[in-house]
Amino acid sequence: MSESTLLLDHGSGGMASNRLIGDLFFKHFGNPILNEMNDAALLDITGPITMSTDSYTVDPIFFPGGNIGTLAVHGTVNDVAMLGAKPRYLSCGFIIEEGLKMSTLEKIVIEMAQAAKEADVLIVTGDTKVVPRGCVDKIFINTTGVGELILPEATSGAHAKPGDAVLVSGTMGDHGLTVLSNREGLNFATDVQSDSAPLNHIIEALINEIGDIHVLRDPTRGGLATTLNEIAGQSKVTIKLIENQVPVRESVRNGCSFLGLDPFYLANEGKLICILPQEKAEAALTLMRTMKYGEEAVQVGTVLDPENSPGKAGQVVLETPLGGHRLLNMLEGEQLPRIC
Amino acid sequence: MSESTLLLDHGSGGMASNRLIGDLFFKHFGNPILNEMNDAALLDITGPITMSTDSYTVDPIFFPGGNIGTLAVHGTVNDVAMLGAKPRYLSCGFIIEEGLKMSTLEKIVIEMAQAAKEADVLIVTGDTKVVPRGCVDKIFINTTGVGELILPEATSGAHAKPGDAVLVSGTMGDHGLTVLSNREGLNFATDVQSDSAPLNHIIEALINEIGDIHVLRDPTRGGLATTLNEIAGQSKVTIKLIENQVPVRESVRNGCSFLGLDPFYLANEGKLICILPQEKAEAALTLMRTMKYGEEAVQVGTVLDPENSPGKAGQVVLETPLGGHRLLNMLEGEQLPRIC
Repeated sequence: MSESTLLLDHGSGGMASNRLIGDLFFKHFGNPILNEMNDAALLDITGPITMSTDSYTVDPIFFPGGNIGTLAVHGTVNDVAMLGAKPRYLSCGFIIEEGLKMSTLEKIVIEMAQAAKEADVLIVTGDTKVVPRGCVDKIFINTTGVGELILPEATSGAHAKPGDAVLVSGTMGDHGLTVLSNREGLNFATDVQSDSAPLNHIIEALINEIGDIHVLRDPTRGGLATTLNEIAGQSKVTIKLIENQVPVRESVRNGCSFLGLDPFYLANEGKLICILPQEKAEAALTLMRTMKYGEEAVQVGTVLDPENSPGKAGQVVLETPLGGHRLLNMLEGEQLPRIC
Repeated sequence: MSESTLLLDHGSGGMASNRLIGDLFFKHFGNPILNEMNDAALLDITGPITMSTDSYTVDPIFFPGGNIGTLAVHGTVNDVAMLGAKPRYLSCGFIIEEGLKMSTLEKIVIEMAQAAKEADVLIVTGDTKVVPRGCVDKIFINTTGVGELILPEATSGAHAKPGDAVLVSGTMGDHGLTVLSNREGLNFATDVQSDSAPLNHIIEALINEIGDIHVLRDPTRGGLATTLNEIAGQSKVTIKLIENQVPVRESVRNGCSFLGLDPFYLANEGKLICILPQEKAEAALTLMRTMKYGEEAVQVGTVLDPENSPGKAGQVVLETPLGGHRLLNMLEGEQLPRIC
């Protein structure tokens, strides 16, 4: 492309928009559905359908392990998959600040296309708005995904049952700490990188090869602690989390200590919580550990009947290394704005 | 709600987010699918499925005839419907500037809920991000819609055929001129208001009662002239537009004259272009005129075989009141940023 920066014209719906769409979006995202160029895309999909949306506003837009575009693919793919579904299609809405470098947008788009390919989803419809300088900070991206349910019945945060095992697919806090430590003005030395990744292949394998999965959820904003509180509330159970079984990288632990953050509340973008009967836990862990993005899967807790637990229905109880118990509440307040 | 302004906490994924979701979004948008509160929504829909997305950045966020929220419902409902589909579900992603008044958000949400009800769609999944002051201008909204195809074959911009009639459902330019004339610093006296409206009921009636609809398209950004150019290009035909048959309100004509704008390039948000065989045109017009938002429907032109026309394939030719012909090009450059 000859243009070096994004102009208001590129969002006008006219000639410049059409050039941008052809030279950039169709070039990298192109597929027969997108290429139809109608107001809407006609999907080749049969029910039951799941749908999820997220707007991504992460700052900085590039960080170790990803960028705002790969995050927008992974985040929505994962949300669609968490209902026990195979993600199939994404829409993509860009809001771009006038003056953004075309090469920056192109780098984002190329890496989004790679992320979509790895996740085996097609970007089938999109929208581009360019707004005057100062009306948005560089670039925000919305993705909305639709998928096909794999199970006869969808997984749900309401399906956790006493006796179930609580598994996580890997370490906690990597994304949150990475973004914060790379933000302008806050840079400090760390070798940590975002865990941003598609989890749909692991989920498909869990459903098809293990089965009887009660809950799948990704602990994004609010982290592991907040997500477990949501599940405990929806399922009306107590969840016991065993503190020293939760995997946290040394570098994340040190960074959190330095910044006064708790890794249990930090966002993850490539990790899932899986709750299923205890007798299936070992097989599920063995399977996850053979798969990319699941190598460090472990059991971190158990679902308890509130009648016979140190907590009440809807509560998460943390068992400390010394054997004591304390309540682990939902996130109150904002630890980190613009983390995703 | 006790809070009077939006805080970063409201987008954190924690307690404040949950209160906002419960007190505002569930209260006004609530339906059994949304209320499940999972990462994704499970839709009650059977194929073939259409999907469309748009991010709305309109400035000002309130204008005569609507606001950014009602526009976000109408715009996406209309895009989904233009493929010959019945829109069923919307996702909704809010990006909000810290400090926005809660009452402003509530007014937008209440009117969105009313717009969704009129269009007979459910808002089934959503996302809220609150970003620091200066990172977004007040509020941007993404909506993504899915619908069910009504026709055995979808309508398409590529289906216009020589001999077809080109109809519009009403006056051109109302939305574009309203937004511009109400923008801060540009206020001038006019009684015009946005035409923002849901067109899906008209489309359903056209398909079910008239049939053989070749093209449906809403002339939004870039206006009638740009949209007809897109259709002429996709269908490889010439489109003749008869200048003095295109309905433009007196107040819009005067406003355009004052500002040096052309109403044929102004955005519409509640108008459709319908292209179908000439012998069906009168019945289609009669039907549209009995329906809300179609009272002023008229034929504005004809599809020509490029071999026997004043233009080439892909061109739009304007027949002037004096009988002359001139090319009507696609919009080049940006007339009005942040019009939708």
